[in-house]
Amino acid sequence: MPKRAPRRAPEVSIGVDLGGTGIRFARVTVDGDVIGRPGVVPVVDRRKAAVLGQLRRAVVEACSGSQAVEAVGIGVPGFIRRDRGVIVRSPNFPDWRNVPVRQILQRDVAVPLVIENDANAAALGEDWIGAGQGGRGILVMLTLGTGVGGGLVSDGRLITGRDGMAGEIGHQTVDPSGPPCTCGNTGCLETYASYTGLVANYRRRTGSSEDELSGLELAARARRGDAEAQLVFADMGWALGVTLANLINLLNPSRIVLGGGLSGAWPLFIRRAMQEIDRRAIRAAARGVLIRRAKLGTAAGMIGAARAAWQAVTGTGHTGAVSRLGRRVRPTMRAAS
Amino acid sequence: MPKRAPRRAPEVSIGVDLGGTGIRFARVTVDGDVIGRPGVVPVVDRRKAAVLGQLRRAVVEACSGSQAVEAVGIGVPGFIRRDRGVIVRSPNFPDWRNVPVRQILQRDVAVPLVIENDANAAALGEDWIGAGQGGRGILVMLTLGTGVGGGLVSDGRLITGRDGMAGEIGHQTVDPSGPPCTCGNTGCLETYASYTGLVANYRRRTGSSEDELSGLELAARARRGDAEAQLVFADMGWALGVTLANLINLLNPSRIVLGGGLSGAWPLFIRRAMQEIDRRAIRAAARGVLIRRAKLGTAAGMIGAARAAWQAVTGTGHTGAVSRLGRRVRPTMRAAS
Repeated sequence: MPKRAPRRAPEVSIGVDLGGTGIRFARVTVDGDVIGRPGVVPVVDRRKAAVLGQLRRAVVEACSGSQAVEAVGIGVPGFIRRDRGVIVRSPNFPDWRNVPVRQILQRDVAVPLVIENDANAAALGEDWIGAGQGGRGILVMLTLGTGVGGGLVSDGRLITGRDGMAGEIGHQTVDPSGPPCTCGNTGCLETYASYTGLVANYRRRTGSSEDELSGLELAARARRGDAEAQLVFADMGWALGVTLANLINLLNPSRIVLGGGLSGAWPLFIRRAMQEIDRRAIRAAARGVLIRRAKLGTAAGMIGAARAAWQAVTGTGHTGAVSRLGRRVRPTMRAAS
Repeated sequence: MPKRAPRRAPEVSIGVDLGGTGIRFARVTVDGDVIGRPGVVPVVDRRKAAVLGQLRRAVVEACSGSQAVEAVGIGVPGFIRRDRGVIVRSPNFPDWRNVPVRQILQRDVAVPLVIENDANAAALGEDWIGAGQGGRGILVMLTLGTGVGGGLVSDGRLITGRDGMAGEIGHQTVDPSGPPCTCGNTGCLETYASYTGLVANYRRRTGSSEDELSGLELAARARRGDAEAQLVFADMGWALGVTLANLINLLNPSRIVLGGGLSGAWPLFIRRAMQEIDRRAIRAAARGVLIRRAKLGTAAGMIGAARAAWQAVTGTGHTGAVSRLGRRVRPTMRAAS
């Protein structure tokens, strides 16, 4: 009788999501199965050295399992230069400017390591095993939260543009003479469809000077029948509809996924958004596009970051991986042609 | 002494551009060289049977040279289902509805035949051997004419979306409460930045009821100092700038190419457009994007259509080719990996 081969632990990639309050990480197989329980490391001190230390801790802990780790992907908030693995700047970490995160972490990590924008990572995650799973063509994902993030995936691969900055759906102009945005523009989607924008618009409407008014409280008021709160959510729907109609006409996507905490207020904005899409999008392109709520919740970012890592080592997408020796990583496997 | 191999005529693909007044065609090598003089067949009668007859004539004439023809690509105006080779509808040919152009022409053509939207074809042409030549990343092309067409090319391949309808830049909303557009929406780029839109806006401003006012005449008036004409061109620049800033933030393109007859009025709108980009686009994404006038003029469409044909037979892009026998064409060559 032949000896039975010992059962091998599956190979995994590590997906990490660097958030403003915590760093989440998980071990993910090439098929998108999460192995074991995801971990989390808190972020209390947001200064650069402290966060980098915690990020290092998370990566090392994630790599310490019994599985063979193939690659590490990290989703980070802010503008990045993905080919260089640099965070250019981040709204969550004000003192970060051109931080070479990949180079710093690579000192402790022997496998390929890639950096991805967190909204892009979430889009990859939802496309892979979330609300967009199994679809072909273009997936548009919006992350509606404190701000509005976006990501574009085409047949499983991110549309990244020249520097990896593509997907800034939050900074699409909806009304050129609209409210001022933190980015310097006026009338961006983010000024209507983020917690920050909703609260500002509610204050403008009501003259309220409540200090502690949160987006969640605003949603609660709208549900309880506060007419002004309902109106700012209707404006959110309007702005979202204008932007989605533009994206439908521009990209002819097959799937649109709305995630982030604010997507939980779905009934407060979606009808108005659909009306606007119906009014503005080319009918043949709008017909059949699936508009869905995200499925993976806060796990989307780390799962998508693992996806980016797998794509880097299999040569099927991400191009920003460099080995510890400073050479560009050669793909070890290619997609079947 | 070994016999000298006889000099072989190069293999060519045929690029055809179906326009409202004429059908242009050329023989184009795999390297983008146009062999011999392009041909043209007039379109006088725009009814379906007549145009299809002329299109057939053009394709047969184009295939009659001494070169081995590998494939035929046809750029057509209007919405298409590229995988099926069907023109869904066309502003230039009002009685065309769901015309299976590829299937009809394939009866007379033994090689793979692909249909592409004309603005997409022009984008492919400019990306290949025109104003975008040699660049990587995303190229955005706008064709400014009677309407506004658009095309998106990423690393040499069209971004087509689910049904091949992507790239409708003319129907991006600039001002949600702007002028009505033929597409049913209001405030589309096309209502500001096309000959049709300019003339309508000039009439609105001046109360003019001149019947024969053309876009060319309007440009001439602006150049001669007509303040109202200059203002409609400034509004065109504003609308173009708003849209290009959105595209820069969304796609982080490396190159933006402006073509079509109206791009000849460049000095009348470009400064205003650049101001608006500067004001609205994310600086890091706007920096370094090349904004250029198209180079290939009216030849862009047929050259790009030939490019689409080459991509279909080499398996490097276009997926809409079917052989005469009704089987999907197997790529005969693959891009080096």
